[in-house]
Amino acid sequence: MKLYEQVAHSIAERIEQSFYQTGEKLPSIRSLSLTHEVSISTAQEAYRLLEDQGWAESRPKSGFYVINKQKAPQHLPDLSRPIQKPIEISQWEEVLNLLCASTTSDIVQLSRAIPDLEAPTLKPLTRIMSDLNKHAQASMLSYESLRGADSLRLQIARLMVDSGCRLHPDDIIITTGCQEALSASLRAITQPGDIVAVDSPSFYGSMQAIKAHGLKAIEIPTHPETGISLEALELALEQWPIKAIQLTPTCNNPLGYTMPVEHKKRLLELTSRYDLPIIEDDIYGDLSYISPRPPSIKSFDTQGRVLLCSSFSKTLAPGLRIGWVAPGRYVNLVMHMKYVVTASTSTLPQHAIAEFIAQGGYERHIRKMRAQYHQSRDVMIGWVEKYFPVGTKISYPQGGFVLWVELSDEIDTVILNERTMRQNVSIAPGMLFSGSGKYSNCMRLNFTDKPSVKNENAIKTVGNMVSKMLTDLL
Amino acid sequence: MKLYEQVAHSIAERIEQSFYQTGEKLPSIRSLSLTHEVSISTAQEAYRLLEDQGWAESRPKSGFYVINKQKAPQHLPDLSRPIQKPIEISQWEEVLNLLCASTTSDIVQLSRAIPDLEAPTLKPLTRIMSDLNKHAQASMLSYESLRGADSLRLQIARLMVDSGCRLHPDDIIITTGCQEALSASLRAITQPGDIVAVDSPSFYGSMQAIKAHGLKAIEIPTHPETGISLEALELALEQWPIKAIQLTPTCNNPLGYTMPVEHKKRLLELTSRYDLPIIEDDIYGDLSYISPRPPSIKSFDTQGRVLLCSSFSKTLAPGLRIGWVAPGRYVNLVMHMKYVVTASTSTLPQHAIAEFIAQGGYERHIRKMRAQYHQSRDVMIGWVEKYFPVGTKISYPQGGFVLWVELSDEIDTVILNERTMRQNVSIAPGMLFSGSGKYSNCMRLNFTDKPSVKNENAIKTVGNMVSKMLTDLL
Ligand SMILES: Cc1ncc(COP(=O)(O)O)c(C=O)c1O
Ligand SMILES: Cc1ncc(COP(=O)(O)O)c(C=O)c1O
Repeated sequence: MKLYEQVAHSIAERIEQSFYQTGEKLPSIRSLSLTHEVSISTAQEAYRLLEDQGWAESRPKSGFYVINKQKAPQHLPDLSRPIQKPIEISQWEEVLNLLCASTTSDIVQLSRAIPDLEAPTLKPLTRIMSDLNKHAQASMLSYESLRGADSLRLQIARLMVDSGCRLHPDDIIITTGCQEALSASLRAITQPGDIVAVDSPSFYGSMQAIKAHGLKAIEIPTHPETGISLEALELALEQWPIKAIQLTPTCNNPLGYTMPVEHKKRLLELTSRYDLPIIEDDIYGDLSYISPRPPSIKSFDTQGRVLLCSSFSKTLAPGLRIGWVAPGRYVNLVMHMKYVVTASTSTLPQHAIAEFIAQGGYERHIRKMRAQYHQSRDVMIGWVEKYFPVGTKISYPQGGFVLWVELSDEIDTVILNERTMRQNVSIAPGMLFSGSGKYSNCMRLNFTDKPSVKNENAIKTVGNMVSKMLTDLL
Repeated sequence: MKLYEQVAHSIAERIEQSFYQTGEKLPSIRSLSLTHEVSISTAQEAYRLLEDQGWAESRPKSGFYVINKQKAPQHLPDLSRPIQKPIEISQWEEVLNLLCASTTSDIVQLSRAIPDLEAPTLKPLTRIMSDLNKHAQASMLSYESLRGADSLRLQIARLMVDSGCRLHPDDIIITTGCQEALSASLRAITQPGDIVAVDSPSFYGSMQAIKAHGLKAIEIPTHPETGISLEALELALEQWPIKAIQLTPTCNNPLGYTMPVEHKKRLLELTSRYDLPIIEDDIYGDLSYISPRPPSIKSFDTQGRVLLCSSFSKTLAPGLRIGWVAPGRYVNLVMHMKYVVTASTSTLPQHAIAEFIAQGGYERHIRKMRAQYHQSRDVMIGWVEKYFPVGTKISYPQGGFVLWVELSDEIDTVILNERTMRQNVSIAPGMLFSGSGKYSNCMRLNFTDKPSVKNENAIKTVGNMVSKMLTDLL
């Protein structure tokens, strides 16, 4: 963290802990410079950041005042209301378009969910990989065992203690990213034609897996702060022969919420009556802004019913394609499905990541990234509030690096994206996150990068375009 | 090649070209040493190798004579006779056992099909990977495009010209090994319950994919020299609603044959009546001992009906998990299936391999490996003939590094493997290569390594055990 960021952070912490109350005047730039032993210009930069993050506002000729930080939840999107019956997933063409969109560097990609890959704390990992390659023994070039490298499974079992799970390394299978974990899990526990309940909006990759496996999805109403509605789920379970649940309960993509612990436990209870398997996507779990990170549903599972899926794609780097699944009682079925689709997972990155974790590099990196994304979230929310029309609803992510924005009903974000792309900014249209084309007035934006003028301008571009579309409608 | 190997090679070539006829006396050690300007001991070593490879035999006090090299085909296994109706694949437990078998270095693994990973011609590839990692840009850590790296698809399109294919890079999708290519292809063109015709014996990985996708297989009788019986296939097509064919026509695993070009063409004709898609597994194609390599079925396909699947697992290194599929007219369906199971393929190895090919490293390596495996084949066949009971039938591979051995009907190679494992030698039991537990008296052995005393002893161990089992039966 730069000096001004440290100063800003310490003030923000005090506000959060209520040492400074809403409306209260904050220390002057001069006194801040004195107490923190920094230059005037550093103190000024700290206040600019606090403003950007929405902690403080400057009142001309008077100074800086605490503003109501808790306002974000007042502008939250509504509880989602998807169609309450099983549907066949569509939208593959649209997903393909998003995935195949040109990625030249002059486009500000607010659309994709890729972590910060320039972080200095990631360097030791690439160094380890380079060294492993240089002295490449035959074993690094050969097939790794089907379950995955012993060393990596051991380290993952240790990491998962943070989420409350006590697993043996043999409870874990290494996969080609979280996508393979999800896909192998789905296929292990369902037959074509089965119905799967999902949170909604939901990550398009898992929705497309449901489609490809010939399954139907029932999208359950989901609250932007607490996640899947347990009441709605209970009703759906009574009404339909649901065979599995798939959800992302911690640092959800795209909504950013973390289900409260009580909800996680109740979900387990509720589904135990049906002995229902739960696919828990935990890919963003370690990027929770709260430390220690929230427990997973799996950590409360005593029946082996939860298949926990995750990867290093959001915490380290997606190009490595290393994920894992802890499939509980379904381990043999998942192993078969994993074998037939990719045989073993690539060898060298498994050993490199295991070494990186063992050296403490993972923890160091995650700590940095959590703080960075936390900070970027607040800046990002500030920008959206500033540049988007009044009435825009914004999620309040508890981890990760994506924001969900809900616009007035008349706006179609597919069209919006086409237009912003002409100005070199891409967004992820909301309809990708529904199997039935809902959320056409929503979008997902990422705030991976450290705040920059370029990104602020990108948000401004999108905001202005939304305003223009609204005006055109009048 | 060592000096004595060069000398032996030149003699072998002359025998092959009929300059020396069966039964004819070969030059004396002394004259060999003179004409090739090598030491007496080098000439002696050359003859020892020719003996091992089955080109020559020494007659006491007389010298070396050409022996009937064409005898191998006389001892070929019979045309396979699998059950002529669709079956559900079993044998997953057995495959899992093979794959999860202990791989400590004191075991001679004749069971697995892993290329020589110690070859010096592979070093430039690991160097490129090390360098790419050292200067890792963010792009190397990020998701590669869904289709795969442009540079690699271009190089593969160029390589495939050798097999007679003229493809555009966009006709190719990069996959996580050949396994994903096969699996995504199968799922793209079939529905659960469908029947797929396969050659038999057949690679267990593709058989298990058929099982996992809820398909039935009909195993077509297959000739050890010419491959799948077109007559039997024609009958099966008339009798059953077959939805796809899957086969490995070039340097087949496990039988080693290459289908004659005429058969490849007739297969296309035959299936065009039914507009039937063909999954062509070409993973060993570039390891053909004949140069230029034989054309693929795909090279004759004008209708986009052939889905060609391959990878660098046998030519370079399986731990990289980089393969590809050229799915013809099914490209969009295959892309969807690929996306839902693994999203994109790992980034860095794609760029490394592309660079390796561009620098000429691939061609150099393949040329070396072809020669090495060709030589090892002949040594290996010599050993099996020497150490196995009379009546043993042996395949005569045209490429790659696996041998198929058929024993007397009473021998169960699963039991054989249990016993040889106690002496630290593993073999691949034949029943793995059938969906219905056929070939229980067969086994697959690899001859990847350069011939060594250790490997000769391993073959001797297996041969002795077979003899013992036969004696015990009496
Ligand atoms: C919620 C969620 N699950 C799974 C994935 C896929 O992860 P991976 O790249 O590790 O396959 C993503 C990636 O975007 C995601 O956001
Ligand atoms: C005929 C055949 N096809 C496919 C495969 C799987 O290849 P990969 O390791 O590239 O997935 C193998 C590997 O043993 C094979 O022998």
